[in-house]
Amino acid sequence: MKLLVINPNTSQFVTDKLSATVSAAADSGVKVTAVTGRKGPPIVGTRAECAIAAVEAMELAVEHGQDADAILLGISFDTGLDAIREVMPMPVVGMSEAGMLAATTLARSFSMVTFGDRAVPIYDELIAHYRLSGRSAGTVSLPPLSLQELQDPMLIVDRLAAKINQTAAQNGAESVVLAGAVFAGIAPVLKDRVSIPVVDGIVAGVGLLQMLHQLNTAKPKQGSYRYPAAKTLTGMSDAMTRHFQELPD
Amino acid sequence: MKLLVINPNTSQFVTDKLSATVSAAADSGVKVTAVTGRKGPPIVGTRAECAIAAVEAMELAVEHGQDADAILLGISFDTGLDAIREVMPMPVVGMSEAGMLAATTLARSFSMVTFGDRAVPIYDELIAHYRLSGRSAGTVSLPPLSLQELQDPMLIVDRLAAKINQTAAQNGAESVVLAGAVFAGIAPVLKDRVSIPVVDGIVAGVGLLQMLHQLNTAKPKQGSYRYPAAKTLTGMSDAMTRHFQELPD
Amino acid sequence: MKLLVINPNTSQFVTDKLSATVSAAADSGVKVTAVTGRKGPPIVGTRAECAIAAVEAMELAVEHGQDADAILLGISFDTGLDAIREVMPMPVVGMSEAGMLAATTLARSFSMVTFGDRAVPIYDELIAHYRLSGRSAGTVSLPPLSLQELQDPMLIVDRLAAKINQTAAQNGAESVVLAGAVFAGIAPVLKDRVSIPVVDGIVAGVGLLQMLHQLNTAKPKQGSYRYPAAKTLTGMSDAMTRHFQELPD
Amino acid sequence: MKLLVINPNTSQFVTDKLSATVSAAADSGVKVTAVTGRKGPPIVGTRAECAIAAVEAMELAVEHGQDADAILLGISFDTGLDAIREVMPMPVVGMSEAGMLAATTLARSFSMVTFGDRAVPIYDELIAHYRLSGRSAGTVSLPPLSLQELQDPMLIVDRLAAKINQTAAQNGAESVVLAGAVFAGIAPVLKDRVSIPVVDGIVAGVGLLQMLHQLNTAKPKQGSYRYPAAKTLTGMSDAMTRHFQELPD
Amino acid sequence: MKLLVINPNTSQFVTDKLSATVSAAADSGVKVTAVTGRKGPPIVGTRAECAIAAVEAMELAVEHGQDADAILLGISFDTGLDAIREVMPMPVVGMSEAGMLAATTLARSFSMVTFGDRAVPIYDELIAHYRLSGRSAGTVSLPPLSLQELQDPMLIVDRLAAKINQTAAQNGAESVVLAGAVFAGIAPVLKDRVSIPVVDGIVAGVGLLQMLHQLNTAKPKQGSYRYPAAKTLTGMSDAMTRHFQELPD
Amino acid sequence: MKLLVINPNTSQFVTDKLSATVSAAADSGVKVTAVTGRKGPPIVGTRAECAIAAVEAMELAVEHGQDADAILLGISFDTGLDAIREVMPMPVVGMSEAGMLAATTLARSFSMVTFGDRAVPIYDELIAHYRLSGRSAGTVSLPPLSLQELQDPMLIVDRLAAKINQTAAQNGAESVVLAGAVFAGIAPVLKDRVSIPVVDGIVAGVGLLQMLHQLNTAKPKQGSYRYPAAKTLTGMSDAMTRHFQELPD
Repeated sequence: MKLLVINPNTSQFVTDKLSATVSAAADSGVKVTAVTGRKGPPIVGTRAECAIAAVEAMELAVEHGQDADAILLGISFDTGLDAIREVMPMPVVGMSEAGMLAATTLARSFSMVTFGDRAVPIYDELIAHYRLSGRSAGTVSLPPLSLQELQDPMLIVDRLAAKINQTAAQNGAESVVLAGAVFAGIAPVLKDRVSIPVVDGIVAGVGLLQMLHQLNTAKPKQGSYRYPAAKTLTGMSDAMTRHFQELPD
Repeated sequence: MKLLVINPNTSQFVTDKLSATVSAAADSGVKVTAVTGRKGPPIVGTRAECAIAAVEAMELAVEHGQDADAILLGISFDTGLDAIREVMPMPVVGMSEAGMLAATTLARSFSMVTFGDRAVPIYDELIAHYRLSGRSAGTVSLPPLSLQELQDPMLIVDRLAAKINQTAAQNGAESVVLAGAVFAGIAPVLKDRVSIPVVDGIVAGVGLLQMLHQLNTAKPKQGSYRYPAAKTLTGMSDAMTRHFQELPD
Repeated sequence: MKLLVINPNTSQFVTDKLSATVSAAADSGVKVTAVTGRKGPPIVGTRAECAIAAVEAMELAVEHGQDADAILLGISFDTGLDAIREVMPMPVVGMSEAGMLAATTLARSFSMVTFGDRAVPIYDELIAHYRLSGRSAGTVSLPPLSLQELQDPMLIVDRLAAKINQTAAQNGAESVVLAGAVFAGIAPVLKDRVSIPVVDGIVAGVGLLQMLHQLNTAKPKQGSYRYPAAKTLTGMSDAMTRHFQELPD
Repeated sequence: MKLLVINPNTSQFVTDKLSATVSAAADSGVKVTAVTGRKGPPIVGTRAECAIAAVEAMELAVEHGQDADAILLGISFDTGLDAIREVMPMPVVGMSEAGMLAATTLARSFSMVTFGDRAVPIYDELIAHYRLSGRSAGTVSLPPLSLQELQDPMLIVDRLAAKINQTAAQNGAESVVLAGAVFAGIAPVLKDRVSIPVVDGIVAGVGLLQMLHQLNTAKPKQGSYRYPAAKTLTGMSDAMTRHFQELPD
Repeated sequence: MKLLVINPNTSQFVTDKLSATVSAAADSGVKVTAVTGRKGPPIVGTRAECAIAAVEAMELAVEHGQDADAILLGISFDTGLDAIREVMPMPVVGMSEAGMLAATTLARSFSMVTFGDRAVPIYDELIAHYRLSGRSAGTVSLPPLSLQELQDPMLIVDRLAAKINQTAAQNGAESVVLAGAVFAGIAPVLKDRVSIPVVDGIVAGVGLLQMLHQLNTAKPKQGSYRYPAAKTLTGMSDAMTRHFQELPD
Repeated sequence: MKLLVINPNTSQFVTDKLSATVSAAADSGVKVTAVTGRKGPPIVGTRAECAIAAVEAMELAVEHGQDADAILLGISFDTGLDAIREVMPMPVVGMSEAGMLAATTLARSFSMVTFGDRAVPIYDELIAHYRLSGRSAGTVSLPPLSLQELQDPMLIVDRLAAKINQTAAQNGAESVVLAGAVFAGIAPVLKDRVSIPVVDGIVAGVGLLQMLHQLNTAKPKQGSYRYPAAKTLTGMSDAMTRHFQELPD
């Protein structure tokens, strides 16, 4: 299975971390390629930045994903997921989507854990978009991370563990999904320090894609995820323009 | 009041129609400017095309909207609305958002009416995004429009009237919102031929923006619609890059 | 446009405040008439008092609204709204309905702010009746107002600002709707003291009615808001009896 | 137990039917009094008519219910229920509320069955007000009744049975609640002709009140159903004015 | 009316308490039989224990309920309710179901009160299963009970009253349902010490069954509560095997 | 990975089919054991039968699952899932749970497809239990299967394909989950005959468990899925009694 990992943030260190976590989690037969955004902010964190990253994720998908068997979106807002799922034929999942779905099979409720209160309603909207609000015990946040913490999240393991245990005790959260590509790989460190399961959305995403690859379902020919009609886009990159021109009926 | 109308479709005839409807509906003191997308498909109709149009709408907003008092999104998927509302200080509304809000004050339920079954779940998601599903009697669709019908919707007034009356009688819809910028201005023709109120989202949008202009509320300094932190974007247009660099604290 | 403002509370000072705020907010061509309840409690604050006020609001509407172009209900429970909307042909909106709709276009969530914990579930039911619970961050309350504070709400601006900022920080509310006709006009004073937009439902209501007047939709001929069949009421006022006798087919 | 049955319709034949059904269903120790509305339409059928009937129901409650142990609202819109429950100390239930609650203990879903499509959304709102939409399989309607059918519903038993069986087979309704005080007593005739349980809300209401009488809970001293503060109403009947003046703390 | 009370806990002292409360609450003509579980844990408290108790409750129903007119499940998880309702012809209610339905007729919202945080999400799921989440102000818990407290709940009346008053004041709960068969009979002691109505689900259940007995509806012949097709079970008790073999068409 | 497949139906041919499908879908390193119910009906199809099967599934889990790394419930009602997840330490998933989660990553909505209208509300409750109703386009049913069709579902491929295409076209379902362990393995045959993806819950379940095995999260120590306190059960099998006696703290 050829797996394309898309990091639409323009920060290479995030891609490196994603790549390492994906490679460690994937089956031995999986060939991993990871690509980084060229347009947009270093780390996506707001609605407007998500809009920019969605197109960049789609650009990366059509440029690098033509022969991929599966695509993993390595950004915790799952930015661009619906768009890529529509225009590409293979399974596509977002890391938070995968993390939440996994969490629902471990316990009754989950909390997303993020950094900075600003993103809380955005994650709540993402949860609502997946219609999973009924399983959410509420998104919780720690103070925003410094650049150093962003690059080395082990620095904040203590605060993270304390927050998770508090969320379990006070909010009744029965599991936790870590929101943020920079946290790929940190779950095992937390495992013995917290009272509830901690889900790494990247690891979940790899497993979910392997499952979907095995399911081997057909591209929809009906509904809102079938291919758009082929058409000529104005002003887009060559890869995008070609992709839309050659969409099959 | 300076009103910027954004049509992120790349079809000028849509802008012309929007411009005429807006000018007819706006108060005498309103100065209207209407701009057209330069990137993307002629008519946006799918999830992926919406993603492209969202960034284009944001581009148009930061390029043309710096001294606007209000922004109206003239695309029935309200594409880019949340992003623009975040990065700009003035009121911003989408034509379908406005149409639905108006419809809720006229009767108990509304149906969006669109063309082609493909967009039905996308409108339903938009309705759900606004948390208005409880007021929706279900989105209904007529067959997709030909290019000729798209440019002259009067050709399909008979079918539209019949569909609206059927939706009222069978689905219990108590009002209708026309989905599609190309239908700007058609509501008065339907008025006497149908049993329930027909809302033109463009006219509603103009009125809603005039109301918000009068309300004169402050740009949020808290929550997910406050300005993002200023930052340097990579690979974006000059207007976007400058806008993000100069975001106030 | 002839605008009838109905205050079904029996307190004239509330009507005076409403009248001033409406006149300041309305377009220059709007002719404002404001009327006060003759039956019921001085200030409506409970379910039973709302039931009484609903009929009184309807009485005022049929008596004074025959040649109005639009009706604004100046009571924050929007008491009688559905009834008046059914029996009258012109647009009718409630001040809280208008305030909430405006708030949803400014940010993701709103909180109603009221006085006394008793009304909290009643506002929550009103929000649910409009199916806007998904946009509510919860109704919050300050201690009940004294008669002096009721007549001069500027006395409690400090407490109000503090409560709003706390609601934004702790509950994640992204905007606020002031519940209470007595607060008409107070929003501008709060604007610079709070972190999120504050919506005055009266100003919003005026704007919404101007928008609906422009939309100029037809009275429903189908559904639950078409006219009732003409009938003879027993024991009601002359105005009500005549209105119901002369309802068109 | 002294049971007051309130029919806020101004039609005595409805009261007579209610009275007979209540007396047949009540325990031997129950003393039944039934009263009829003096103000409003003969048969309440719309939102505005409900508003009028709500105050009339409250008038009847404060005038005739001072020494009652329980109050049953004999109108299928449960008009005035919340208001009476607030100002009176004894249990108060509506016939549709009781019918729906009973239906939820017999099967998974219920359908209200009414006459005329106009009331369908009003019943759906009532169901939603009770937060029972998740148990509703949808309200269904037969054509409006003639005056003769209204007075002798046995005339339409065939159509009613056919509609119920169709609703069970096509909509998946697992039980039915008859909406309309005029249908009190018709359920036994339907029992062997339909495939699902048929609930008579009047009989259910009597049983529910007997249960609440046995529960013997206290009048709330907290929340939105505690007594309003005593106050002087303007322009209301002597009974209402006295009742509000003498409300306990 | 012959009333079978099923306690699927294997603790006889719970049955004794249930039996006393039921007998005190039931009409004079009701003949009460109460039976105790022979399989499973002494006191059911978890999901797995509920699964065991559900079958035991069903065993007790088919063994002892053949000539009963009504069945009351005396376990606050309402364990086995849906199963028994399906295979038996007479009305069957659970004590928490009955308590919640009663509570909704007394005020706007209820809180279940339980002991130990573990059961909170299980009660919330039960509430959601009945689709009553919209009326719940949240399940609250006190510390788990000691064996002594379990057998003599009067020991914790002070803590219980304090918790109820706190839940009313802070969470806005307008009534309370006691979760736990061991609390049968404690409500009258709490009545004057708390600000909101306290519902005893056992008393409510008796009244609800008397109401359903009076309603005298037919066993469904359509939908998910009609009898299963007769079949031969493997490895079950004689009573269960015979019951399933002899199920009517 | 040692994978235990539990078929709580007492029909060996179902286990054989499950076993073949699981073995074909699992990674090469997975060791599959499949066990069959000894108590209950041949094919579980009703609420009461589910209650019986839940305990039998739990019996099989504690008897055969002590050294398993993962457990797959091979019954489309996911019977016993919550109970087993509570008392066992390894990942446990149900085939319908897995199928639905997979379906949500392929398109916007899914329909469960079952046989016989009786199970439709039971599946809808299962979907609601997972809080996935917002992704369901409604459960649809074909006529009940004969014993021959049950054992050889290829006989009904034509009807199944026609139903799926109809559900896509008329109900807007964007994917389908096959409900019924007997349909394991039939999805590839349908793939080219239908317009939307068809998910085999067994294949999805294998993949989901492989993902959860890789995630390697800890057994909850907090919340409703932590182990029950150790206790002595009465009257249960040796395996169950021992398991509950030895539950860790």
